[in-house]
Amino acid sequence: MFRYELLHVDQNCGARLGRLHTPRGVIELPTFMPVGTCGTVKGMTTDMVEATGSQILLGNTYHLHLRPGESVVKELGGLHKFMGWDKPILTDSGGFQVFSLAQRTVVDEQGATFRSHIDGSKITITPEISVQIQQDLGSDIAMVFDHVIELPSSREKVKDAMDRSIRWAERCRDAHTLESQVQFGILQGGLDESLRIECAKELRQLDFPGYAIGGLSVGEPPPEMYRIIEATTPHMPEDRPRYLMGVGRPEDLLQAVLRGVDMFDCVMPTRNGRNAMAFTDDGFLKMKNAIHERDPRPIQAGMHTPHAELSRGYIRHLFMAKEMLAGMLVSMHNIGYYQRLMTQAREAIAADRFLDFFEERMAGWAGGKSSD
Amino acid sequence: MFRYELLHVDQNCGARLGRLHTPRGVIELPTFMPVGTCGTVKGMTTDMVEATGSQILLGNTYHLHLRPGESVVKELGGLHKFMGWDKPILTDSGGFQVFSLAQRTVVDEQGATFRSHIDGSKITITPEISVQIQQDLGSDIAMVFDHVIELPSSREKVKDAMDRSIRWAERCRDAHTLESQVQFGILQGGLDESLRIECAKELRQLDFPGYAIGGLSVGEPPPEMYRIIEATTPHMPEDRPRYLMGVGRPEDLLQAVLRGVDMFDCVMPTRNGRNAMAFTDDGFLKMKNAIHERDPRPIQAGMHTPHAELSRGYIRHLFMAKEMLAGMLVSMHNIGYYQRLMTQAREAIAADRFLDFFEERMAGWAGGKSSD
Ligand SMILES: [Zn+2]
Ligand SMILES: [Zn+2]
Repeated sequence: MFRYELLHVDQNCGARLGRLHTPRGVIELPTFMPVGTCGTVKGMTTDMVEATGSQILLGNTYHLHLRPGESVVKELGGLHKFMGWDKPILTDSGGFQVFSLAQRTVVDEQGATFRSHIDGSKITITPEISVQIQQDLGSDIAMVFDHVIELPSSREKVKDAMDRSIRWAERCRDAHTLESQVQFGILQGGLDESLRIECAKELRQLDFPGYAIGGLSVGEPPPEMYRIIEATTPHMPEDRPRYLMGVGRPEDLLQAVLRGVDMFDCVMPTRNGRNAMAFTDDGFLKMKNAIHERDPRPIQAGMHTPHAELSRGYIRHLFMAKEMLAGMLVSMHNIGYYQRLMTQAREAIAADRFLDFFEERMAGWAGGKSSD
Repeated sequence: MFRYELLHVDQNCGARLGRLHTPRGVIELPTFMPVGTCGTVKGMTTDMVEATGSQILLGNTYHLHLRPGESVVKELGGLHKFMGWDKPILTDSGGFQVFSLAQRTVVDEQGATFRSHIDGSKITITPEISVQIQQDLGSDIAMVFDHVIELPSSREKVKDAMDRSIRWAERCRDAHTLESQVQFGILQGGLDESLRIECAKELRQLDFPGYAIGGLSVGEPPPEMYRIIEATTPHMPEDRPRYLMGVGRPEDLLQAVLRGVDMFDCVMPTRNGRNAMAFTDDGFLKMKNAIHERDPRPIQAGMHTPHAELSRGYIRHLFMAKEMLAGMLVSMHNIGYYQRLMTQAREAIAADRFLDFFEERMAGWAGGKSSD
């Protein structure tokens, strides 16, 4: 049922063309997963999400546990039926949110106890509880519950959290019973290359069908992130998909694809979309800018997402009039832009010209930044 | 190009089955026109609007004149291209908004001068200016600029505004030059049957290709509105479409269809949709109500709008989580519900059983009101 297929590695770099077979369909890699935090990709129907070329969504275990609760989702047929999306879904474990969004979080070997950011109620999530929640949600890919810490931290603190994450990963694996779902392990180790390598080695023993790089994009400079990715991917199994969690900007995606990463998720396309920032090959546009008032051009030529022909002038008008459609359309455009970038990346890898494509896009983004 | 075709009148009441031929397509009557005030049906892409079965949209001249201005719309290709809707569009004249939404409105024989509700700037709209704005917008059907007053008012005041509206209608007709656009006249006369009949008679002389009943649904009790419609439609030409402006609730639509009205517009489906009120055959549902938490049923069975299969529990969750998608989905549901009602009405008229259909729906709405 679940199987990763490595189709080709670009001759000139680490970029991988792959395919992930799941019970709910095939996912062409590399790919971007739009984030459906609370059972919806913000501002988009699932028809709109599908029309962007998205192949798999991410759902947030922490948010869905708090509201509406996984028992409601399960009773209403599981997350796919609940939100009306029949393609694959990956759920995170709640680990990241417990350490970033929740309040008064206390960790011991058993798990994490914290206060809900919604109503202040006291909640405990252990590796076993995270597995149970994700099984009730019925996602296709579940993530192990990990101990995420802020960076920079001391090596001792980073190693301590990493070792706990490895023990928790094993407990997640042992607690897992849902046959239609697979689990991915998560590599930790902060910005320390030797710890990252050690973590990769330990987690390989647990034989997960996929591996993620976690604990990055938490405020460190992008070159630091690229350095860690570059040091880590060679120690990840070649025959398993590689997922960089919570990343990122279009340039971050290409930097990571270059180094052998296959999967991404980020709220940036939808969050920026609601905030009137639109991605293009020439950098981003601030759609409220008066320069767009009478501009008949589409945000980006050559897009295949619905309504891609609408003018910059119209989109600007919608933002000035505070119309919901403004954020809806630019969220859809941005996700469509990310998917187009991944499609172009796949085509480039197949032709062993990913480096050329990479340089071309980087030049466009760097040169156009002031054109908005 | 523009032609009204009366197909059938129900044997047992005044309900009319008709067809409006326009350069941008055929409109089956009776029909409901979703309101796209500022160049968007709030919370819906034009794909979503089309999927509800909507055949024609309404655009607001007052709002578009204020923002972005008709010169921007014209420069960007006209209202159809601007908003990405290639089916027919009807624009109102601004008359109603000038007397309801604008501030410090002063009327003289020339026109109306007022302050913008957005930035307080001083604006004048005359019949000729309203015609020019609507021609720049490029709508398929334009409305004459009329003098709307609040009800109740003295007979003298009602007659004075009505007489001015008739003079303005003639000025609109004379100012009109756009061949691809037709103009509808608007009947005024308040709640006075004799004035309504007099107005109908006068406007028939001006030979408009369609006629609207204006100045209703401004706070009077619904039975008063039905009484005026019933007194007015027999005096409107049988071979022209009849449009009841700004109305209304599903029961108001059926009450008016019963009396020979063909076209409607109202913000209620979208406004209620954003406010978590969903229309059904058993009355409306308040979607935030806890009773829906684990309810797997769709809002209304038998709907063909996209995502109609989503559960009440999911929709409630989206409202509780304050997700944009909540208002988007229920707006789409509500407009789809109105269009389904109009489709069912057309089928009933064709079979001479509109009265049965009317009674059935009225009983459902009356009986179900407490079931939410
Ligand atoms: Zn992110
Ligand atoms: Zn209304």
